[in-house]
Amino acid sequence: MVVLKDDERIDDLLADETMQIIQSPSAFAFSLDAVLLADFTYVPIKRGKIIDLCTGNGVIPLLLSRRSKAQITGVEIQERLYDMAVRNVELNQLEGQLEMIHGDLKDMPGRYGNRKFDLVTVNPPYFPTPRKKEQNLNDYLTIARHEIYCSLDEVVQSCSKLVRSGGKVSMVHRPGRMADILTLFRKNKIEPKRLRLVYPKVGKEANILLVEGIKDGNADLKILPPLYAFTNEGEYTDELRNILYGK
Amino acid sequence: MVVLKDDERIDDLLADETMQIIQSPSAFAFSLDAVLLADFTYVPIKRGKIIDLCTGNGVIPLLLSRRSKAQITGVEIQERLYDMAVRNVELNQLEGQLEMIHGDLKDMPGRYGNRKFDLVTVNPPYFPTPRKKEQNLNDYLTIARHEIYCSLDEVVQSCSKLVRSGGKVSMVHRPGRMADILTLFRKNKIEPKRLRLVYPKVGKEANILLVEGIKDGNADLKILPPLYAFTNEGEYTDELRNILYGK
Repeated sequence: MVVLKDDERIDDLLADETMQIIQSPSAFAFSLDAVLLADFTYVPIKRGKIIDLCTGNGVIPLLLSRRSKAQITGVEIQERLYDMAVRNVELNQLEGQLEMIHGDLKDMPGRYGNRKFDLVTVNPPYFPTPRKKEQNLNDYLTIARHEIYCSLDEVVQSCSKLVRSGGKVSMVHRPGRMADILTLFRKNKIEPKRLRLVYPKVGKEANILLVEGIKDGNADLKILPPLYAFTNEGEYTDELRNILYGK
Repeated sequence: MVVLKDDERIDDLLADETMQIIQSPSAFAFSLDAVLLADFTYVPIKRGKIIDLCTGNGVIPLLLSRRSKAQITGVEIQERLYDMAVRNVELNQLEGQLEMIHGDLKDMPGRYGNRKFDLVTVNPPYFPTPRKKEQNLNDYLTIARHEIYCSLDEVVQSCSKLVRSGGKVSMVHRPGRMADILTLFRKNKIEPKRLRLVYPKVGKEANILLVEGIKDGNADLKILPPLYAFTNEGEYTDELRNILYGK
């Protein structure tokens, strides 16, 4: 039996009801962005090592376990969210494949050594550190959303150290930071190779950026077909429904 | 009367038949890319100065003259194409607004001075310099398509010198070079602000990249809705037809 704390609840992870996830409205609930990253990223299928930084309640490791037999490590700096992630591993009986670490992503290269992972995934905080008065009063959400404990620069540096040469780094972020991300990838020898933009609906500007790079890779970026989230009638598009319901 | 040379012919520039353009199958015929850049770019409407680098037969200045009363300069390094561009200005009786220069884009900051233009447009050669045996035997096309006289780095440096602070630089290129372009824009203090990807049809990877930056601008990139060129039946999409026929 998994224990629920405070305002936590158990949700179906995907609509096919094969996995469940502990969420908390006040502490952490997974976003569409995480589901899209788990769908977009390359994964080693049969063996290898994956590390997911800023893992929150462990949603990305849970999702990737459906596509891969690789060992998956999740890293979360907030103890409250790490604790949820640990219980999510138990809830889905994935102790043999998934491991959750309570720690700072910047310390992981020191802990694991450089170039040890075949894939690094990350859904980092999106927003620069706000001024005090603008910070979300809920500290859990503020830390998950803002660059308080790690800047984008530090996130990319850590990804670059953790991934092996020829291994992949996949990130979800906001399109407004695309120039920052591509510049930082290059600076850290992660060559951008695949990029996908997600648009809320036809005729709108992109609002989610998915990008994957290869450590020490050659320059040649492919831009995948766009993904639309909603129809003009406000319903999920068929493609998004397929992603959410598990193909 | 405008003189036609060799295999030149006069085509309608856009389907509305208000402008004409001299083309040559062996020397230069304008591409969809140029039409898309002229549609995508910001232009100063009433006054100001625009310079179009790698102008070829002057197609972009001709198209921009429909949207702007600004003075427009076209620069072309190949004398044969420059000569077509000059005759295209005459053919359309635009001598009062358009000027064509035979010269190297790298010499233009020296000729005009730094920070003199409100807008720089450029449809540069797309391909790295090929090995000799792979070069197109037609020198005109080889030079227009390959980085023989100017590298992408040199193109962006020249754009950055020519544009005033707060002015804009618009470029069309291949999506495979997006990381190069955003990195070079940043390095040359042109902040990427608007980006649009063109896809040949639904479900395919992007094949044309349109990007506009502001000299000394603040970081905040908007990614416009995608443009599809063709329907699944192989016809122009309504949006592309509107661009080609002149809105």
